[in-house]
Amino acid sequence: MYSIGIDIGATNTDIGLVRMDGTIIGRENLPSQSFDKAEIYISAIIDKIRQLLANNDVQDLDGIGIGAPNGNYRTGCIEANTANLRMKERIPLGTALEEAFHTNVKLDNDANAAALGEMVYGGAKGMQNFIMLTLGTGVGSGIVIDGKLLHGANGAAGELGHAIVNPNGRLCGCGRRGCIEMYASARGICQNYREEVLKGDFPCSLTKEGLDAITCQYVGESASKGDKIAQRAYDTTAYWLGIALANAAAFSEPEAIFLMGGPTRAGEALMRPLQKYFEENLLFLYKGKIKLQFSQLKSNETAILGAAALSSSI
Amino acid sequence: MYSIGIDIGATNTDIGLVRMDGTIIGRENLPSQSFDKAEIYISAIIDKIRQLLANNDVQDLDGIGIGAPNGNYRTGCIEANTANLRMKERIPLGTALEEAFHTNVKLDNDANAAALGEMVYGGAKGMQNFIMLTLGTGVGSGIVIDGKLLHGANGAAGELGHAIVNPNGRLCGCGRRGCIEMYASARGICQNYREEVLKGDFPCSLTKEGLDAITCQYVGESASKGDKIAQRAYDTTAYWLGIALANAAAFSEPEAIFLMGGPTRAGEALMRPLQKYFEENLLFLYKGKIKLQFSQLKSNETAILGAAALSSSI
Repeated sequence: MYSIGIDIGATNTDIGLVRMDGTIIGRENLPSQSFDKAEIYISAIIDKIRQLLANNDVQDLDGIGIGAPNGNYRTGCIEANTANLRMKERIPLGTALEEAFHTNVKLDNDANAAALGEMVYGGAKGMQNFIMLTLGTGVGSGIVIDGKLLHGANGAAGELGHAIVNPNGRLCGCGRRGCIEMYASARGICQNYREEVLKGDFPCSLTKEGLDAITCQYVGESASKGDKIAQRAYDTTAYWLGIALANAAAFSEPEAIFLMGGPTRAGEALMRPLQKYFEENLLFLYKGKIKLQFSQLKSNETAILGAAALSSSI
Repeated sequence: MYSIGIDIGATNTDIGLVRMDGTIIGRENLPSQSFDKAEIYISAIIDKIRQLLANNDVQDLDGIGIGAPNGNYRTGCIEANTANLRMKERIPLGTALEEAFHTNVKLDNDANAAALGEMVYGGAKGMQNFIMLTLGTGVGSGIVIDGKLLHGANGAAGELGHAIVNPNGRLCGCGRRGCIEMYASARGICQNYREEVLKGDFPCSLTKEGLDAITCQYVGESASKGDKIAQRAYDTTAYWLGIALANAAAFSEPEAIFLMGGPTRAGEALMRPLQKYFEENLLFLYKGKIKLQFSQLKSNETAILGAAALSSSI
């Protein structure tokens, strides 16, 4: 029993052949940016899948799942004009792969794929109600209710990165103020760090240029090493995220909330304050009842496993 | 085809015999506060139902639905120590009515009942995804996803009245700050009014005692008559509620959000600013796509019809 998981990112298109137990037994890769025509891109993906099947002596596929930014699960297409892809036309990948491999193909957005990956292969095994928050350049979310992905009236549910937690706060790329994405994305964490430096409570050894160029990874590593400025930056993230997650809990009462993505590599520097603020902000009905934890999948496998998990979803 | 809808409130227990088309063909009533023993209360309800069936010459019931504060749909009981009821024990109404009438009995909390009432008999007919917000002493919510009530991991989902919109705002009865209930409940609207008076931008003809004793109904009627202070009070409600509802939309992408309860009697004085703030705060994906409207059921029928609708729910 094998399936294919395809993770489409701005830089790479990762393709994995996944055994039922969640082992990735083969991987292939395409540079997403080198394609400007959907037709050629689709052909290249088909070739890579054929190669994976042949190399691993697999004849039958249970399904193919695709996680993509702007992936529309109803049409099986990546929508036109997706930011960060050179191809600006609509990419009808679902139908094309169905025709090529005569198997069940599911395409969905990357955060939904991540949620399903956690449910099928990770820490959400056996759970019927949980939320996956993907922290990265932005903040995305996949919400599972009664064992099924929440898609909403038109397939656009689960935009928790754009829950407003601070109405007079930072201006978000979406045009509104105080979305949680502005505090919990990689960029938001760097911004927290810079604001802490400006407060001047602790000395900062970075030059002006160094400060402009900091990365979330730097802040995370500094926080883990005990850097007070970086710890305060993560505390700010945890404060706003704790409120946002408590509000999400009051909506769907999940069993657990999972976090994944670059900013979670800070580990306890994020989780310790986040646990505190989350519990403080939870309505009494839920206190002590909702688990908060990091994804239990390896970061370089999550996206492929998530996509593979999609193929078996309803 | 008939069902019974029972609305249990702090003051009254309303019992209605409902025809399939949503007409209430008979009503009975019990004063909830005169009971301090669950057993006697249950017997009295059974007698009233028998009376309704006999008076209207109805032999067969399709089901009985009960909407109650603290109603637990999994156990069919009203939980022990429910605020505002004299009976402090657990009330096992579901099982008792099932045994007495040999029919399908469903019990749920009142906001969930209201949501189903709207779906079966009101403005949400045919909708698969919507949210009902009940404004009153508190703020409750019933959330429908893919045609089913959202109950969450332990039956406590849908506490949107306790979504935090203003983390440094008013202290809520739940112990946290800035829950939307503090701005959009009847009490919250009175508080908005008093704060507007204190600002002194417009003259207020009320005495100190008069101001202490205002009701939400007074504020609503004053706003409709053009009173600037009352209009500002509703504007404040609309501002915070607009944010809360935009956040709810980013969670489940409903087709519509309905509002019901006392504070909605202010009509356009609430709806006009609310539409504005809601659209302003909606993520671009949803703008112009999510209807915001008042319940289309008569206010004195909503609770009974909602309860009756529960009986036919999955």
